[in-house]
Amino acid sequence: MKYSPTIQKLIDLFSKLPTIGPRTAARFVFYLKNADKKEVKELLTAIINLKKNVKNCSFCFNSFEPSQISSKIETVKGEGNLCNICSDTRRYKNLLCIVEKETDLISLEKTRKYKGLYFILGGILSKLKKEEIEKLRIKELIERIKNPAKCGIHNLKIQEVILALNPTTEGEATILYLERLLKPLSCGEQGRTIKTTRLGRGLALGAELEYADEETLGSALEGRK
Amino acid sequence: MKYSPTIQKLIDLFSKLPTIGPRTAARFVFYLKNADKKEVKELLTAIINLKKNVKNCSFCFNSFEPSQISSKIETVKGEGNLCNICSDTRRYKNLLCIVEKETDLISLEKTRKYKGLYFILGGILSKLKKEEIEKLRIKELIERIKNPAKCGIHNLKIQEVILALNPTTEGEATILYLERLLKPLSCGEQGRTIKTTRLGRGLALGAELEYADEETLGSALEGRK
Amino acid sequence: MKYSPTIQKLIDLFSKLPTIGPRTAARFVFYLKNADKKEVKELLTAIINLKKNVKNCSFCFNSFEPSQISSKIETVKGEGNLCNICSDTRRYKNLLCIVEKETDLISLEKTRKYKGLYFILGGILSKLKKEEIEKLRIKELIERIKNPAKCGIHNLKIQEVILALNPTTEGEATILYLERLLKPLSCGEQGRTIKTTRLGRGLALGAELEYADEETLGSALEGRK
Amino acid sequence: MKYSPTIQKLIDLFSKLPTIGPRTAARFVFYLKNADKKEVKELLTAIINLKKNVKNCSFCFNSFEPSQISSKIETVKGEGNLCNICSDTRRYKNLLCIVEKETDLISLEKTRKYKGLYFILGGILSKLKKEEIEKLRIKELIERIKNPAKCGIHNLKIQEVILALNPTTEGEATILYLERLLKPLSCGEQGRTIKTTRLGRGLALGAELEYADEETLGSALEGRK
Repeated sequence: MKYSPTIQKLIDLFSKLPTIGPRTAARFVFYLKNADKKEVKELLTAIINLKKNVKNCSFCFNSFEPSQISSKIETVKGEGNLCNICSDTRRYKNLLCIVEKETDLISLEKTRKYKGLYFILGGILSKLKKEEIEKLRIKELIERIKNPAKCGIHNLKIQEVILALNPTTEGEATILYLERLLKPLSCGEQGRTIKTTRLGRGLALGAELEYADEETLGSALEGRK
Repeated sequence: MKYSPTIQKLIDLFSKLPTIGPRTAARFVFYLKNADKKEVKELLTAIINLKKNVKNCSFCFNSFEPSQISSKIETVKGEGNLCNICSDTRRYKNLLCIVEKETDLISLEKTRKYKGLYFILGGILSKLKKEEIEKLRIKELIERIKNPAKCGIHNLKIQEVILALNPTTEGEATILYLERLLKPLSCGEQGRTIKTTRLGRGLALGAELEYADEETLGSALEGRK
Repeated sequence: MKYSPTIQKLIDLFSKLPTIGPRTAARFVFYLKNADKKEVKELLTAIINLKKNVKNCSFCFNSFEPSQISSKIETVKGEGNLCNICSDTRRYKNLLCIVEKETDLISLEKTRKYKGLYFILGGILSKLKKEEIEKLRIKELIERIKNPAKCGIHNLKIQEVILALNPTTEGEATILYLERLLKPLSCGEQGRTIKTTRLGRGLALGAELEYADEETLGSALEGRK
Repeated sequence: MKYSPTIQKLIDLFSKLPTIGPRTAARFVFYLKNADKKEVKELLTAIINLKKNVKNCSFCFNSFEPSQISSKIETVKGEGNLCNICSDTRRYKNLLCIVEKETDLISLEKTRKYKGLYFILGGILSKLKKEEIEKLRIKELIERIKNPAKCGIHNLKIQEVILALNPTTEGEATILYLERLLKPLSCGEQGRTIKTTRLGRGLALGAELEYADEETLGSALEGRK
C-alpha cells in the first residue's frame, strides 16, 4: 500500500518538522485533508505572513515584526531593524546573554528576572569541527563585542556575557569554546575585559536529592542561601 | 514575553494538528522561519495540491487522486469516483471491512492479507449520543449494504462485514452498536443475511504472557493453532 | 562515602533479586533497618518456610505445599508429589501446556480457559547453545511424553502440546526448537503422533490498529470471528 | 488460581518493601524458591546481622556499626554511640545539614563537598498535622541545637542549619515549618542566632532551558557565576 504522490509529498515535508516522524506526518495530512477550506486557507496565509512579516533583529537575531514594535516603549530613532528587546531603552546595555535558539530566549524572558540584551548563537557545537563552527554566529558575536558603536544600539558597553547554553555535554563544550574565545576580548576602545558567566547549577523544582547527580548536588550545596 | 501576532497566529493553527501542543507548535514556527524560501514554497504548494488533487472515494471515503488510478489495473468504465481499491476488479466484492479512519485502512493494507473492500466510518462512538452517531457515516454504510446496485461497484454482494475497530472501550461500544444495526439487514434484494465478524484477539508480537490481560490471554489460548 | 559492611552485604544480596539495582536494594535495607522486629521476624520466617514447605511438582515442576492439597479435590492415592493441578482428576490428561516459568502458568490459570496439564520448561533459549539447552527441562519433557505410565499421572495420554512461550524472538526460537524435537515423538506405546500448537496472535485488549505490527494485524484479520 | 499460603504470605511481606507491588514480589518469591540453599542462607544471615550489628547514631540517627568505626580516624573517647561522621574530629562542628532520610545523607556525602554534621529528620510533612509532626525527630533536633553540651559531640556550636530537603511541595512546606521553628532559637548559652539556608536552585546536569520551569530558570540566572 503506497500513499498517492500528493499525500506522500506532504508527508515527506511534514516529516522535516522537528520531532515529527512519518506516522505523525501522515496524521497531519489526513487532518488537513478533512479540515474545512477556511482553516486550511488560514494556515496557508499564516505561513506566508510568517515569511513576509517576521524579520530577524539586526543585533540579536531574535524575530520581530517591524510594525509591531510597541509605541509605548520609547525607542531610539533609526532603530528600525532592532527587535522589541534591543530597541527598548530600559534594558541594560552592559549585559549580553548568549542563547542557542529563539525558544531559549523566550524561556528566559518568561522568568522576568533578566533585564539585559540577548544574542542568538544559532546552534551549539557537537564536535568543534570547522564547518560546524562556521554555521554558528560566532563572527557576528565578536563583532558586536569589539565594535559596539557599529551595532545600532545606543550606549552598548558589554561587561558581562552570560553563556546561557544547556548544561548538556554539547552545551558545555560550546561554553568552553566561547570562554576561550571571549576572554582576550575587550568591549570597545575602553579596553575593559569581558566577564563571562554561566547559569547556576542546582536542584530543579520538584527534584529529589536521592536521584540528583553528584555535580548538581555539589553545586546545590555550594550555592545554598 | 509574548510572541508577535504573526508568530502567535501560526502557533495557534499548528496547535490544532493532532498530538501537537503550543510548545511543539512554536518549534515548527521557528523551524519554518529559518527554513529557506524554497522549502516553505514546496510546503505551501503541497498543502494546496492536497486540497485540489485528493478526493474522497464515492464508495469507501478513502482518499485518492483521480489521475493516479494505475492504468495497470483493469477498472470498470465510469468508475471515475472510486479509489484504487474500490475500482480494482480483483478485490473481492463480498467482503466489507469497516475502519475508523484512513490510517487504519493503510495499516490493514500493509499486512497484504485482505482482499476485500473497505468503508471508512469517520470516527467511533464514545457516548452513543445522537449527535455523535450522526457525525459517523452510518447512513452511508446502511445504504451501501441495502442498495448495492446504486453504489457504483459492479457485482457488489456483501456477505461479511468485518468490524475492524480498535479493541478499546470506545471501539467495542461502536462494534456492539454496529452489530445490532447490521444484523437485521440483508444485502440487496436476494435477502441474504449479513455476517458480522471482529478482528481476532491474542498476543501481539513481542508481548509477554506475564503482563497480558486475562481476556487477551484467554483468546490466545482459544485461538491456538 | 561507603556503606558499612553489613549494609553493603545486604545491598549486594538484594541486588540479585530480579529487576532490582543497588539503589532500590539500598532502599530495601533502610526500610528493614527501620522496620520493627516483629515484621523482620515475619519476613525471615516466611523465607525459611518457603524453602521448607514449598516443593516442586514431580510432573510439571510447579510449586506446591504437600499439606495444602485441597481435600475437596478427589486425588488419586500415592500422588503425594504432585501439585494441585496435576493431582486434580478433573483436569484433562490429553493436553500439555509448556510454559517458560511459574508466573506464566499462573497467568494462564487466571484466564480459567485451560483445563489441561502444564509443564514448566525453566527458561527459554536465546542462542540455541548446548549449555543453554541443558539448563532447560528438555529431557524431562521428552520423558513425560514418551513414558506417560512412569510419570505418576493416571490415564496420561498427551495428544496436544501447547507451546505457550512468549511471542518474542527468543520465545519463537524456542518454539521452533521444540516443534522439531516433539514432531517425531508419539505419546506412549500407542504410537499416536503429538500435535503441537502455539498461542493465537492478534490484537490485545486496548491495542490500536494504527500502531499494531503487520504480523499481529495480519493474524488478527485471519483469526476474525 | 491462588498461590499456596506460604508463597502468598511471602508475596504480602515483599509487597511492603518500597516500590514493590505484588507482581514483582511474586518474582522475588520464585527467584528465592529456585535459588540454592547457600544463597538463601546468606540472605537470612545478612538480614539478621542488619538488625543485630547496625545501630542508629545517638546524635544524627545515621546508621553505623560500632565495631566498624575506622581506627584511622581519631575519635574522642566515650563517643561509642556516634556514627563515623559524628565521631570524626575533622568534621566542622558549626554546620548542621538536615536531611529527610539516610539515602539523602549518602547522596550528599558522595559529592565530597560537605564537611559538617548531619541530622536525619525521619520524614517530611505533607499536611502539617500534629500526628505527622510528632513522627519526625523535631524535639530531638531542637534539643541538639539548644543543649549542644548534652549531645555527646565535643565543641558543637551550630551556626548554620542547612535545610537539605527535596524542593518538592512537601519538602518546601517542611522547610518553611523548620525555618519558623529554628529562627527564634540560639545555639547553647552564648545566644548566637542560628542561620538557616536551603540548597541552591538551578539547572541540573543535562537539563534543557526550553523545558525548565520559570522558577528554576530564574534561580539559575540569579545564581550565575
